[in-house]
Amino acid sequence: MNIYDQITKPTLLLDEPIVRRNIARMATKARRSGVRFRPHFKTHQSAEIGGWFRQEGVTAVTVSSVDMAVYFAQHGWDDILIAFPVNLRQLAELNQLAEQVTLHLLLESVEAAERLSAGLRHDVHIWLKIDVGYHRTGLDWQDRAAITAVAQTVHALPRLHLAGLLTHAGYGYKEGGAAEAQAVYQQMVARMNAVRDGLREAGLETAVSIGDTPTGSLIAQFDGVDEIRPGNFVFYDVMQVEIGACRPEDIAVAVACPIVAKHADRRQIVVYGGAVHLSKERLVARDGQVTYGRIARPTAAGWQILPPANFVAAMSQEHGIIQADEALFEQAQIGDLLLVLPVHSCLTANLLKRYLTLDGRWIEMADIH
Amino acid sequence: MNIYDQITKPTLLLDEPIVRRNIARMATKARRSGVRFRPHFKTHQSAEIGGWFRQEGVTAVTVSSVDMAVYFAQHGWDDILIAFPVNLRQLAELNQLAEQVTLHLLLESVEAAERLSAGLRHDVHIWLKIDVGYHRTGLDWQDRAAITAVAQTVHALPRLHLAGLLTHAGYGYKEGGAAEAQAVYQQMVARMNAVRDGLREAGLETAVSIGDTPTGSLIAQFDGVDEIRPGNFVFYDVMQVEIGACRPEDIAVAVACPIVAKHADRRQIVVYGGAVHLSKERLVARDGQVTYGRIARPTAAGWQILPPANFVAAMSQEHGIIQADEALFEQAQIGDLLLVLPVHSCLTANLLKRYLTLDGRWIEMADIH
Repeated sequence: MNIYDQITKPTLLLDEPIVRRNIARMATKARRSGVRFRPHFKTHQSAEIGGWFRQEGVTAVTVSSVDMAVYFAQHGWDDILIAFPVNLRQLAELNQLAEQVTLHLLLESVEAAERLSAGLRHDVHIWLKIDVGYHRTGLDWQDRAAITAVAQTVHALPRLHLAGLLTHAGYGYKEGGAAEAQAVYQQMVARMNAVRDGLREAGLETAVSIGDTPTGSLIAQFDGVDEIRPGNFVFYDVMQVEIGACRPEDIAVAVACPIVAKHADRRQIVVYGGAVHLSKERLVARDGQVTYGRIARPTAAGWQILPPANFVAAMSQEHGIIQADEALFEQAQIGDLLLVLPVHSCLTANLLKRYLTLDGRWIEMADIH
Repeated sequence: MNIYDQITKPTLLLDEPIVRRNIARMATKARRSGVRFRPHFKTHQSAEIGGWFRQEGVTAVTVSSVDMAVYFAQHGWDDILIAFPVNLRQLAELNQLAEQVTLHLLLESVEAAERLSAGLRHDVHIWLKIDVGYHRTGLDWQDRAAITAVAQTVHALPRLHLAGLLTHAGYGYKEGGAAEAQAVYQQMVARMNAVRDGLREAGLETAVSIGDTPTGSLIAQFDGVDEIRPGNFVFYDVMQVEIGACRPEDIAVAVACPIVAKHADRRQIVVYGGAVHLSKERLVARDGQVTYGRIARPTAAGWQILPPANFVAAMSQEHGIIQADEALFEQAQIGDLLLVLPVHSCLTANLLKRYLTLDGRWIEMADIH
């Protein structure tokens, strides 16, 4: 069972037991908490990996684009939330989807609600996107008037059914760990419930949906919400290790990269594996050091993660420049493979479009551009 | 002729007259300089756009991977340089290619030369990768002993034919403009010719090949070299504008993105168009402001570039957050399109995989993962 012999170019490896363990852990926590687990499938974008969630009892999913919704609908999922502010230019696709599946959409303005309702021929469930402090998008949780106006519009319009309130927190917990995560979680839930209470006073009942991997990973129990939508936890990555959401050994994907050159004067190893394979997502350490990934080496059983002194220090379209410690530099030979644990696994998977499991099986992804 | 009506999701637009103008300008400069023009096709990765180069007299091309070489060989190109340190794990593909086309490969070590020669069944042309100061990879131009050793090894080994010396400079010229570019060019050429002279003393004749868009764009004449390999100039991008290599109106590609939300309190516009469409390549201004692209708006004839106060300030997997000036914010409506001029057009094209011309024609790219 050595899959490495067959690898000739940058290849996304997937450790299936780690993936299944990550899924089971989150599914169990959701079940124990009594919340609906609606995982975000944008990370893996794969019907086969979706099936592993189904084996854990998952029946409803989250995606981030209409194309991804179409792909998972074609693969038997019939309860799909598109967790992205509704794109009014895709009404034709949305109508087709709404005819086939229970479709959940995101709104954050009266204008979009009116235009969506006017363009739909089938019923959809509507979630209001609430901004609890991340400031990417959504209705400010403190703007009760605006939220009520959108909710009442949705409630009144044909084909739109007000389902709930949805948020995505984008916090990092490096310093505070689980205690800080718990505090941030409680603040987020308190804010979402304040919004829910406000709408209840206006006579509107709503569910609360939250979703992010760091919080979902670090807190012990999902209190005060109805639904969770984490996604990245299926693979995790170096960013999540940095945030403190997982251990390096929870990372389930790595990119195998052929070594093409070595530079002893600066102890660097050049690999075939660059921005078109890993993405340019990066982390900046306190000393200003930029990294595009951590390094592991192939073993008979999978991979062994090397100390943090080994990392991808620079990157161009096809090249990765690995800064190596003495042990790695000595050992690495031109023509060998090194593995890069990605900074952001969602973007890396999206670039490489398929997975090779450690027992040598290819898993296909949606081919969405 | 309004192509914008048909666009429903992030779409890579291509202004064919600008592309043809960019190609013609570089081809003319190469011709006048008496150097071989071997453009890098990694930027566009398209057989059809390759044809536009052929119309300007181009017969030899550069690519950055074996897969890309295979694609262009399939589309009639028979003189191909893979400008990436040879990947010894792809010997089977290299043998197939070397049988079909005049194949040029890059080496930078004795070890790789020996293993390549041992694995090849057909003749190839070898270029030594020389590092003139960029420190990505290559033999240090000052390390005469190492360079001579590799060159002599190549010269002595079967199936390898020493063709020349190749370098890629990665300079930025923002401050100094054309004068600084000229100075850097002269230094680079002097260093490459010093290496060439050293090899000549050892009885080995080599050509000199250089390649980067900023230098190629800014200098008036290519003196002292035999071949140029710029690539990005075919489209240019915001990074090249920043470097000073082109004007904004030389940028030939833009990503059309639907507006999905507006936030008046922070004058931000949220578009459907994120890291999986544009890449996370970024520029950091002197004040620390990060940008992932400049903004243009659709016009009947193509697009109009807006002032630099309008830019992509943040990005997640599918979202782009545009910081807007008052005029744009007032004008932009949910459901409309905005155009993003990418920071790095090579990575954006690689993500979107096809182009829509302004007269509504789709141009396909190689589908390489």
